[in-house]
Amino acid sequence: MLEIWHEEVEGVYDQMVAWRRHLHENPELPFHEENTARMVGDILAGYGISVRRNVGGHGVVGTLKGAKPGPTIGLRADMDALPIQEENDVPYKSQVPGVMHACGHDAHTATLLGVAKILSRYREELNGTIVFIFQPAEEESPGGAIKMIEDGALAGIDLIFGHHFISSIELGNFSVPIGKATAAIDNFELKIIGDGGHSATPQTSVNPIVIGVQIVNQLHLLMSQKVNPNKPVVATFTTFNSGVSQNVIPTEATISGTIRTYDQSESKKIEGHFKKIIKHVTVTYGATYELDYSDGYPSLINTEKEAVRLRKVLSEIEGSKVIELPPIMASEDFSYYVQKIPGVYFLTGSKTEDPNTQFPHHHPRFDIDEHAMKNGARAFLSIVDYYLVK
Amino acid sequence: MLEIWHEEVEGVYDQMVAWRRHLHENPELPFHEENTARMVGDILAGYGISVRRNVGGHGVVGTLKGAKPGPTIGLRADMDALPIQEENDVPYKSQVPGVMHACGHDAHTATLLGVAKILSRYREELNGTIVFIFQPAEEESPGGAIKMIEDGALAGIDLIFGHHFISSIELGNFSVPIGKATAAIDNFELKIIGDGGHSATPQTSVNPIVIGVQIVNQLHLLMSQKVNPNKPVVATFTTFNSGVSQNVIPTEATISGTIRTYDQSESKKIEGHFKKIIKHVTVTYGATYELDYSDGYPSLINTEKEAVRLRKVLSEIEGSKVIELPPIMASEDFSYYVQKIPGVYFLTGSKTEDPNTQFPHHHPRFDIDEHAMKNGARAFLSIVDYYLVK
Amino acid sequence: MLEIWHEEVEGVYDQMVAWRRHLHENPELPFHEENTARMVGDILAGYGISVRRNVGGHGVVGTLKGAKPGPTIGLRADMDALPIQEENDVPYKSQVPGVMHACGHDAHTATLLGVAKILSRYREELNGTIVFIFQPAEEESPGGAIKMIEDGALAGIDLIFGHHFISSIELGNFSVPIGKATAAIDNFELKIIGDGGHSATPQTSVNPIVIGVQIVNQLHLLMSQKVNPNKPVVATFTTFNSGVSQNVIPTEATISGTIRTYDQSESKKIEGHFKKIIKHVTVTYGATYELDYSDGYPSLINTEKEAVRLRKVLSEIEGSKVIELPPIMASEDFSYYVQKIPGVYFLTGSKTEDPNTQFPHHHPRFDIDEHAMKNGARAFLSIVDYYLVK
Amino acid sequence: MLEIWHEEVEGVYDQMVAWRRHLHENPELPFHEENTARMVGDILAGYGISVRRNVGGHGVVGTLKGAKPGPTIGLRADMDALPIQEENDVPYKSQVPGVMHACGHDAHTATLLGVAKILSRYREELNGTIVFIFQPAEEESPGGAIKMIEDGALAGIDLIFGHHFISSIELGNFSVPIGKATAAIDNFELKIIGDGGHSATPQTSVNPIVIGVQIVNQLHLLMSQKVNPNKPVVATFTTFNSGVSQNVIPTEATISGTIRTYDQSESKKIEGHFKKIIKHVTVTYGATYELDYSDGYPSLINTEKEAVRLRKVLSEIEGSKVIELPPIMASEDFSYYVQKIPGVYFLTGSKTEDPNTQFPHHHPRFDIDEHAMKNGARAFLSIVDYYLVK
Repeated sequence: MLEIWHEEVEGVYDQMVAWRRHLHENPELPFHEENTARMVGDILAGYGISVRRNVGGHGVVGTLKGAKPGPTIGLRADMDALPIQEENDVPYKSQVPGVMHACGHDAHTATLLGVAKILSRYREELNGTIVFIFQPAEEESPGGAIKMIEDGALAGIDLIFGHHFISSIELGNFSVPIGKATAAIDNFELKIIGDGGHSATPQTSVNPIVIGVQIVNQLHLLMSQKVNPNKPVVATFTTFNSGVSQNVIPTEATISGTIRTYDQSESKKIEGHFKKIIKHVTVTYGATYELDYSDGYPSLINTEKEAVRLRKVLSEIEGSKVIELPPIMASEDFSYYVQKIPGVYFLTGSKTEDPNTQFPHHHPRFDIDEHAMKNGARAFLSIVDYYLVK
Repeated sequence: MLEIWHEEVEGVYDQMVAWRRHLHENPELPFHEENTARMVGDILAGYGISVRRNVGGHGVVGTLKGAKPGPTIGLRADMDALPIQEENDVPYKSQVPGVMHACGHDAHTATLLGVAKILSRYREELNGTIVFIFQPAEEESPGGAIKMIEDGALAGIDLIFGHHFISSIELGNFSVPIGKATAAIDNFELKIIGDGGHSATPQTSVNPIVIGVQIVNQLHLLMSQKVNPNKPVVATFTTFNSGVSQNVIPTEATISGTIRTYDQSESKKIEGHFKKIIKHVTVTYGATYELDYSDGYPSLINTEKEAVRLRKVLSEIEGSKVIELPPIMASEDFSYYVQKIPGVYFLTGSKTEDPNTQFPHHHPRFDIDEHAMKNGARAFLSIVDYYLVK
Repeated sequence: MLEIWHEEVEGVYDQMVAWRRHLHENPELPFHEENTARMVGDILAGYGISVRRNVGGHGVVGTLKGAKPGPTIGLRADMDALPIQEENDVPYKSQVPGVMHACGHDAHTATLLGVAKILSRYREELNGTIVFIFQPAEEESPGGAIKMIEDGALAGIDLIFGHHFISSIELGNFSVPIGKATAAIDNFELKIIGDGGHSATPQTSVNPIVIGVQIVNQLHLLMSQKVNPNKPVVATFTTFNSGVSQNVIPTEATISGTIRTYDQSESKKIEGHFKKIIKHVTVTYGATYELDYSDGYPSLINTEKEAVRLRKVLSEIEGSKVIELPPIMASEDFSYYVQKIPGVYFLTGSKTEDPNTQFPHHHPRFDIDEHAMKNGARAFLSIVDYYLVK
Repeated sequence: MLEIWHEEVEGVYDQMVAWRRHLHENPELPFHEENTARMVGDILAGYGISVRRNVGGHGVVGTLKGAKPGPTIGLRADMDALPIQEENDVPYKSQVPGVMHACGHDAHTATLLGVAKILSRYREELNGTIVFIFQPAEEESPGGAIKMIEDGALAGIDLIFGHHFISSIELGNFSVPIGKATAAIDNFELKIIGDGGHSATPQTSVNPIVIGVQIVNQLHLLMSQKVNPNKPVVATFTTFNSGVSQNVIPTEATISGTIRTYDQSESKKIEGHFKKIIKHVTVTYGATYELDYSDGYPSLINTEKEAVRLRKVLSEIEGSKVIELPPIMASEDFSYYVQKIPGVYFLTGSKTEDPNTQFPHHHPRFDIDEHAMKNGARAFLSIVDYYLVK
């Protein structure tokens, strides 16, 4: 069976490319995936798959019941884009100013649609059920997974699989972490409330920009002193916004970012230090602040037994290799699924020698080698074959 | 004559308050003073004053020719507001979100209109001509003065006067600097061009926020080392804007502000240091930049002889005192007028014991004691009396 | 045999304590271990062990030839102390102001002397030779190991072992890294050459303190941006010295420290960044500099096969446990021995519930639980038994 | 009389140079001017001047009573050197390692000795008394003046004069401030108490170097925000000392410097901010501190009436000019004398086109053009002539 399915991938490849490019041109921000979800639901329905829409927001769940009884396997793709202005010069460039599929979710969705298309023709061969989970809002905590779970998306599923195309792994390679796969993430948004005024007289104002500068500087410096090198922490400031005019000292500055760890006890420590810094720097300058510091996605922990199995399954795909990598500092709300049921998250290489495929994720020039979608599709088909085909 | 005029001020006070509050509710940003200019032109015309509109943009010039020959005196007010969200809770609060008369230009305009109203009735007594200059865009370099001058606003004027209400001087007091009155100002806007990416992997990006933080920190630190305390410099960062998302490292940061000095040679030195810092910090982090560094308004130098005269004239206003103050770090494009013709710029106190009148200029809670408009009007009337009334 | 030897340790314990305390009271800095070396040589000679003195400096090599042929095993201890003022209040407190055995080398030496004392009585049982290597100058690069090797200390040795007492591991536990055991270290000393002057006029000087402050701040900040969290780097500034008077801006500042990595390619990157920072910050302020940046000890790589064996050997010591730990950021010139011949470096726990045994190494209150010397001695005896006793 | 005296200066010039060079070769630190004081006392006594030694320490007071009654005029020179290693390559280079007359006190002393030599021959012409005050310890707060005053040095003196050679004023020029002449100074010494340890594990230590770096950075940054540009403040860090070894994180860092203002209320504000910074930064990092923050010399306020007179007196010296300068940020314990009795402190130019005379004070290459001593001597003689010669 598997050989046939892998062969079928060639047949749907052009279709996957077309879907992916359509999504790439029409990206939608987290929690706004209306058109994407409609397209996904319509396509699944077109293949006779039973579709449930608006699951926990813009989530779509498709259920393909096999002819014979057996376990239920979930396959998950995410659908949302990012607030980035695309800088690629490609025919399928984003048509939405300031929004871009810079993390490959367009390809995740297109790939899983391709898998659905193929499998929809082989209902007779399946001993069990496949649930296709198309999730919105992976990029923005609290994320779409938690809402879909609350809305019953995992009902009846025994085992769930998801993957990510990744520009740091060569096309043809997979990585399957045993146990810890991604970091735990904390998100923060800090509003510094100073006191505005005329740029001629800083001494009668409290400039929130200078205070923000100190907080950014101090957090990085303190981390250099407090972090255990064997328990790494990555703190990143991603926004700093204050002021509109050259001769007006603004009243407020807003700074946000993320703190990521493999070991949640470390992030608690850094959170404590960060709060101490904010408190002491603002007091020193005579400002106040509001801090929204929230736990984001927890560490994603692959079910060990299934991950070991999956390594074997993927290494048998022709032309593929499973490589060993350290965990990554990215985070994923796939972690919530595997807190509920067993599951495995894996990485599918999408980098070639073409420099266009080598930009980091979330970069305005991020792109994948689209052939990676064949590998992603075959990986899912291999999983289905392993669990549902006798 | 002067006694009568000063008495007349009581009669137009309610009208000045009404005009000022109307303008306060309807503030317009620099270069956008369309409605303000129309209102000013209509009022002047209504008093039989000859009006020229759209002078160098939204400028309005009113000419009141006296019955007898004599010198031509210019009186100037500015009309523009600032991009600040008003935080005062007053009946005449700004109705335009994010725009506010936070520097008192509303009162400058209303006061000069009141003066025009009074003087329009005394044409017969005037030996010479009064030119009312209502200037747009004082708050934003290159400013409105330079355009109005190019468009002939100073034609025929022998001597020009302007003033500013100021919340650091008590109501009833005036300050008339002999010679240097305000600072020279440089404006800068710096765009740092880093390399965006995923907040999980700063090591594959170049975060422009961190670079901006270093530049702000370094400029202040270097100034502590390089500035001669007897030649003070005030550098202020008023905007720092970068990033929109918590998990995307942005590509660019934009930082702007002003550098002010009494002694232009110092500002040249600081400009040199600033450019050195920007270059070396960006190179260190692997970023590039674009810097727009421009000379703003020059130092405003009052004509000494006339300033000495004005001190005497103002000190004779009943209940008024002329106080001695160091120059201020603010800047003014009134400086361009006095580069062309003799003139004096003075300050009119608008602070009382009411805390609402004590906020610094450009503060979201800035306000004046409206009685200051009486003092401003009397000052202009005393000037006219001194030069044009036998 | 081993049971008897382990029993003998009880008999020499008081002697080891006395030796250790004598050394603790009389610490000698790296390259100045004259009295320590004399004492060690005399004691070994007293037990009939053949002694070679002044090996590569103050090194001492004792050779104990067994009655029967067999392999030659090296056992190594280090003898030097640190430039720290002891703050412990103990009867054996350092008598040398500013010098202290704050890393336990006193106990290493005493322990190996105890082992030599015991084994000297069992020559008949030994199939092979034991070489006792007492090394000076472990604490200061280029260290004593390299000189002893050049002077023939390893001649004829087949396999070498060394260990460190460590206050982060519980008494009774050992750690035996497989492969990578310690970090590679770079040492730097930076002299910033500014321009001195009067503290009243910084603007006519170039204050090297402010420049040093920027370099320290910048290195930590840049590392937060450039280090891969999976390849940790520890940069530490340990000296910053400049100035003697409150009203004289000094001419120079000297700053030194270490950069440590598990992965030498990372340290090369950080070295490059550090040099870039120094260059750009000094240019910005108008200073010059001299930088002495040198590779220190390389990473210590235990011979894998022997390390696996040693884990087994040590786990069989009664009351002992071999625990699994990540590598540590410390560095060791034992690394040079195992670049030449196979060998293993292990860690011997010296921490109890007594807080006095829990201070970090190089702390002015560092101390060990002296019972750890029994464990260290038994470990060496087990090694000898494993390789030289039939 | 004055013409003769001014002529006599030529005759003692070589002697003044010889004395100055002897003192330059044999500098003594504040509070250690034993040999200088002995030499001064011996020379004065040799000219028949009544000498009192050990006045308030190493102070020397010589009294020359004129033949006729009249006022008593004090003339003051300071005698101490600085802890600086001289870098001049001159025949009279300091012979004491690390100690140097880098502020010209050697020339002050030699000049006043020359004046004493001349005047000792003209006792008959003097209507009144001259008191020569040779003061130790001007460079180090609490200074020598206060002790000499307590020990009676000002007894009977009606009016006191002192001066300083200064490398920022041209040879031949004098400056005589009316009123405020120098800054008020605060001195601080901060000991940061962290927690030492191994440079491999900063996370188990509290590195006082990093904390000191933050405090230096923050003070300068906060000042950029809080100082009124019209009331300048100069804060200078002149020492930062911590650590002795590359692999030991030190326990303590000591940082010292000065804060200078013309307006003492500003220095109180900066003192408050500085203390806030220290407290908040140390708390953030988990360190403690000891701060010795002391008021140093107050602002020196010349007696206005006498300063106006002196400007006239000095402007009449042939070839001399009195120039107008802003006050300087240096401080002087001459301020204590004029808190007790009227007096004037003036500046005597010592700069020529020779670059060797242009280094700032306290620079390792500071030197004067020795001809300035003629001008200094003539200034004192003119003062004596003005007040004591009919």
